[in-house]
Amino acid sequence: MKCIATFLNFPFAIGSFLLWTSLSRADDPLPSWNDTAPKKAIIAFVEKVTKQGSPDFVPPPERIATFDNDGTLWAEQPIYFQFAFAINRVKALAPQHPEWKEKEPFNHLIAGDMKAFMAGGEKSLLAVVAAAHSGMTTEQFEAIVKDWLASARHPKTGRPYTEMVYKPMLEVLDYLRASGFKAFIVSGGGVEFMRAFAEKSYGIPPEQVIGSQGKLRFELRGGRPVLLKLPDVQFVDDGPGKAAGIQTFIGRRPIAAFGNSDGDLQMLQWTTAGPGARFALIVHHTDDNREWAYDRTSNIGKLGKALDEANEKGWTVVNMKEDWKHIFAFEEK
Amino acid sequence: MKCIATFLNFPFAIGSFLLWTSLSRADDPLPSWNDTAPKKAIIAFVEKVTKQGSPDFVPPPERIATFDNDGTLWAEQPIYFQFAFAINRVKALAPQHPEWKEKEPFNHLIAGDMKAFMAGGEKSLLAVVAAAHSGMTTEQFEAIVKDWLASARHPKTGRPYTEMVYKPMLEVLDYLRASGFKAFIVSGGGVEFMRAFAEKSYGIPPEQVIGSQGKLRFELRGGRPVLLKLPDVQFVDDGPGKAAGIQTFIGRRPIAAFGNSDGDLQMLQWTTAGPGARFALIVHHTDDNREWAYDRTSNIGKLGKALDEANEKGWTVVNMKEDWKHIFAFEEK
Repeated sequence: MKCIATFLNFPFAIGSFLLWTSLSRADDPLPSWNDTAPKKAIIAFVEKVTKQGSPDFVPPPERIATFDNDGTLWAEQPIYFQFAFAINRVKALAPQHPEWKEKEPFNHLIAGDMKAFMAGGEKSLLAVVAAAHSGMTTEQFEAIVKDWLASARHPKTGRPYTEMVYKPMLEVLDYLRASGFKAFIVSGGGVEFMRAFAEKSYGIPPEQVIGSQGKLRFELRGGRPVLLKLPDVQFVDDGPGKAAGIQTFIGRRPIAAFGNSDGDLQMLQWTTAGPGARFALIVHHTDDNREWAYDRTSNIGKLGKALDEANEKGWTVVNMKEDWKHIFAFEEK
Repeated sequence: MKCIATFLNFPFAIGSFLLWTSLSRADDPLPSWNDTAPKKAIIAFVEKVTKQGSPDFVPPPERIATFDNDGTLWAEQPIYFQFAFAINRVKALAPQHPEWKEKEPFNHLIAGDMKAFMAGGEKSLLAVVAAAHSGMTTEQFEAIVKDWLASARHPKTGRPYTEMVYKPMLEVLDYLRASGFKAFIVSGGGVEFMRAFAEKSYGIPPEQVIGSQGKLRFELRGGRPVLLKLPDVQFVDDGPGKAAGIQTFIGRRPIAAFGNSDGDLQMLQWTTAGPGARFALIVHHTDDNREWAYDRTSNIGKLGKALDEANEKGWTVVNMKEDWKHIFAFEEK
């Protein structure tokens, strides 16, 4: 009898449970955000797309949100963290590559002449990334990245790189997930580099991480299959590539997208061009004290065109200095 | 009071609900399967990886299962259904392409000379696929595929192609999902072709469909972003490409994989080479009466090497004739 009675109560119990979670969430889903316009815009959007019967209601399978990584979920100064990894890796590999002593741009890195190295610009960085991200199996690469993340420290804060994630954005991720969204990373960064920490740092599983990719070669080694990382690029998930990557990997247009630079412009355009309620947000780095302040003239995370279009189209722009109560979790300790 | 009482009952209600679903599932999760070895092997695997405290227990986020599509989830004879679509499409486009009248292999199709067309082998088919799958936006392509699926009929059964799905495999998908698995399609077929029906036919959402891909070009048309499908291949998700595709798109090794041909061999090798409990299954087409019988000498779905390796390694091989009570749902009507 007890069993039947509780079973009959089940729909009511579900009802009160939902009421209870929605009340406790209503307390404040975004405590690290000041009560300024961006926080209000996020909450208003989530409430209208999740409210049954609302004209803007979106069924859960279509609640897709995409996030850039560098400069949106974690910091990207003074250089993209993946470049810091690649430089470190090339230095570690140098003894096995005596030919690098004579070869640009490796020679500058080995000599410790960062000025000469950086003068090579993007080309130097890409050469180092290719050298650091190929020639091993995918399993070996994952172990190398995890080792580096465990030991490397950010040059300004002295913190592990995985502590350089933005607390307000972690709250957005939690809030969206609690509201039935599926959150994806859509980043120019290397997909296998990001997957080494995305699940632990952001709660985003590997299959929801989209990034730039190198080619892989399947091989049997002593009967055991491995995937070897090749230095050839297969797909660049940046700029227009972000819209293409979303289509290729997700196959469904997001209803919300979060970025911080001109490399995110096409993702924001693609997201907001769909029918129904849409949300686009840009993190504007304006806090030279707690983080960094940069936009139109920066080499890293340049933000000009996307900022202009955000203003034109009424996208949400976060002013980090004004809108974020905290930036990093370690500030509060 | 009522509210508090039901809230307190909630854990018990959940308990009885789970008990109830687990009992009804235990009745028979795979009713279209005969009680032969493959059915027993599937159930034994699922039970051991989902049983808390079992040495083979796998946490839900790692319960990844991958399925080939053609010949594994739906039929693939007398030609891959996507080729039937492409041929139909090229015929429909012919009036807009007068140059095709003189151009191999299009001229044969337009003249209705299928023998001359098929003599061109794979090269002819790929030319037709490229012509049918490019030159439109991704949204237009989705609409074209859906229109075709709604009207086209299979030449042997006279049924819509989406009714040519294997009922026993739909039961496996349901059983795995109810057991906390995430099921992905990993197929040589075109990713956007499959996504047009995978959610409705299999319950597999677009972001869990991995397939071969063409390149996409982002364009603004009158300020509105579109993704244009180009005739260039970006990634071929077949053979060794299936292992690479799993790594690139999922980033986590499956614990179970289901295929039917030599094109699935590397997926099965990659899946079973991981640590812990693993499951590999091959659908062997042995029923010339209810479906088709083919393996080592077939042009479509050739199964030789993978069958030998399955026998060597003890992978589960489904003999469709003996192991499946029903093949298609329409048989039972």
